Amino acid sequence: MTGGAFLALDWGTTNLRAWVVGKSGEVLRRRDFALGVGGLAPGEAQRRFHADVRPAMAAETLPAMLCGMIGSNLGWRAIPYLDCPAAFDQLHEALVRVDAAGPPVWIVPGLRAERPDGGPDVMRGEETHLFGWAVEDPVRARGEHLICHPGTHAKWARMVDGRIDTFVTSMTGELFALLRKHSNLRVAEAEEDDAAFALGLEAAGDGRALASRLFTARSRVVGGDMAPRSVESYLSGVLIGAEAASTPSLLGIGVGARVSIIGDLALSARYRSALEACGFQTDVFDGEHAVLKGLAALFERAVATC
Amino acid sequence: MTGGAFLALDWGTTNLRAWVVGKSGEVLRRRDFALGVGGLAPGEAQRRFHADVRPAMAAETLPAMLCGMIGSNLGWRAIPYLDCPAAFDQLHEALVRVDAAGPPVWIVPGLRAERPDGGPDVMRGEETHLFGWAVEDPVRARGEHLICHPGTHAKWARMVDGRIDTFVTSMTGELFALLRKHSNLRVAEAEEDDAAFALGLEAAGDGRALASRLFTARSRVVGGDMAPRSVESYLSGVLIGAEAASTPSLLGIGVGARVSIIGDLALSARYRSALEACGFQTDVFDGEHAVLKGLAALFERAVATC
Repeated sequence: MTGGAFLALDWGTTNLRAWVVGKSGEVLRRRDFALGVGGLAPGEAQRRFHADVRPAMAAETLPAMLCGMIGSNLGWRAIPYLDCPAAFDQLHEALVRVDAAGPPVWIVPGLRAERPDGGPDVMRGEETHLFGWAVEDPVRARGEHLICHPGTHAKWARMVDGRIDTFVTSMTGELFALLRKHSNLRVAEAEEDDAAFALGLEAAGDGRALASRLFTARSRVVGGDMAPRSVESYLSGVLIGAEAASTPSLLGIGVGARVSIIGDLALSARYRSALEACGFQTDVFDGEHAVLKGLAALFERAVATC
Repeated sequence: MTGGAFLALDWGTTNLRAWVVGKSGEVLRRRDFALGVGGLAPGEAQRRFHADVRPAMAAETLPAMLCGMIGSNLGWRAIPYLDCPAAFDQLHEALVRVDAAGPPVWIVPGLRAERPDGGPDVMRGEETHLFGWAVEDPVRARGEHLICHPGTHAKWARMVDGRIDTFVTSMTGELFALLRKHSNLRVAEAEEDDAAFALGLEAAGDGRALASRLFTARSRVVGGDMAPRSVESYLSGVLIGAEAASTPSLLGIGVGARVSIIGDLALSARYRSALEACGFQTDVFDGEHAVLKGLAALFERAVATC
């Protein structure tokens, strides 16, 4: 059963990715827009959705399902978080319809969790990727799973029987961008260097003393061991290596466990290397496929009950 | 025995601090110059020294002893590093006289060490603080000491009988500046908040998963637990707390040890809180006093042997 064609949007801080999904779940059109909510004025999201996104996607009359930071106070409207542990059914029940007139437009709420190490944590958008992964194959999702969703703000979640139990955010991608652009470690020209990435993974050690491990990028250059153009790959290795070595334990998950990485495939490959170097087993799943499965499943439910 | 009056300079990346030291070691004049080598053109350091610093200090005819990044390729001239383990006598022997004519001008070499966790590490300037602390009271310096020199790039050194055995750098201060100025965690207005600093120390845990602990600054604000103006104090607590919890172990030094903190007194007080929360004992020493002792001791030796 499907709810017909719809417009699916993963609308984040820096980017908006849109798909028109056909009756049988096939992708008819796909496009990225430089309309991340981080760059929008108050009220602009709704206007751009109608004036730019709908026409560009030839989707003026389609219902739409939106996830991501579009549901924050930076976006269309602040949608309350759903508290963890959270199941897919609860996410569906917490959908918010934002346009009173015209074809329905729903926004998926984000999630809030109590971190195992204390204090709250939040996500907006990744919940749809994670539930998409779970609802696509409920048998696969049975039992306890550690999910890693890499990105600017990577999310590490413990899922049990398809429910998101708790999660923590790791701002590894943002730290990498800060170091690359603004720090004393920045370099004029960089190139991908797999050996430097591997050396960075090794230098990350057990994930402690990160501020000190990072500095070795500079001392290796000053000491003549490393070419400046390799610094970025090395830093990426130190940061992802430290994250892989220490974040699962925050969720009470020990070395040797299986980690499901859901995300951009190039970045996921780096996380796979880092996690396997720490003794974890990994499976990699395409994040775009997962978020589409999640948006489609939510859309089907919404249409069936609206 | 003293070598007479001299001009003492701690010339770093962002600042130059100058003192005229009298015959008996008393400070006659003291001034900061916005002439950090990070902002100087090639060749400018030597010119500014003669044209600006000497006249402003009324020190045209005095010999001078300089330490810090002035001895790097950004400064007056690149002075080779002295390898660790390094003793004060070796530092004195490795002084480099840079002005052929006129009153002598010496530059103190920096140190290079092999880090216990692999790879090189370097310092320029802090060696003079550390040796100043050691030569001021050789009895106090006997045995093994863990020294912490906080700053943009904090240095943690293991000294044995007044010799610098090895050290690691922690770029905690720089990470703080990057987060405060350029990250998604930055806030428009900040105020000192001791309770938020203490909460940050606690959130740092055992110093692992730093990229995740830092994000709690944002999730606490989003979750309504913390006022945006307290974010900077909280981040300072997470960063210094993680550093205190995990850096001594890089040098093979366990909890319960005594740490001598040599540095700016306000920043040292934060390190003291962090280290004591982790179970270390601490003594705080004024960094300005220490570097003056180091420069004076080097000057005396240089005069006696030149």
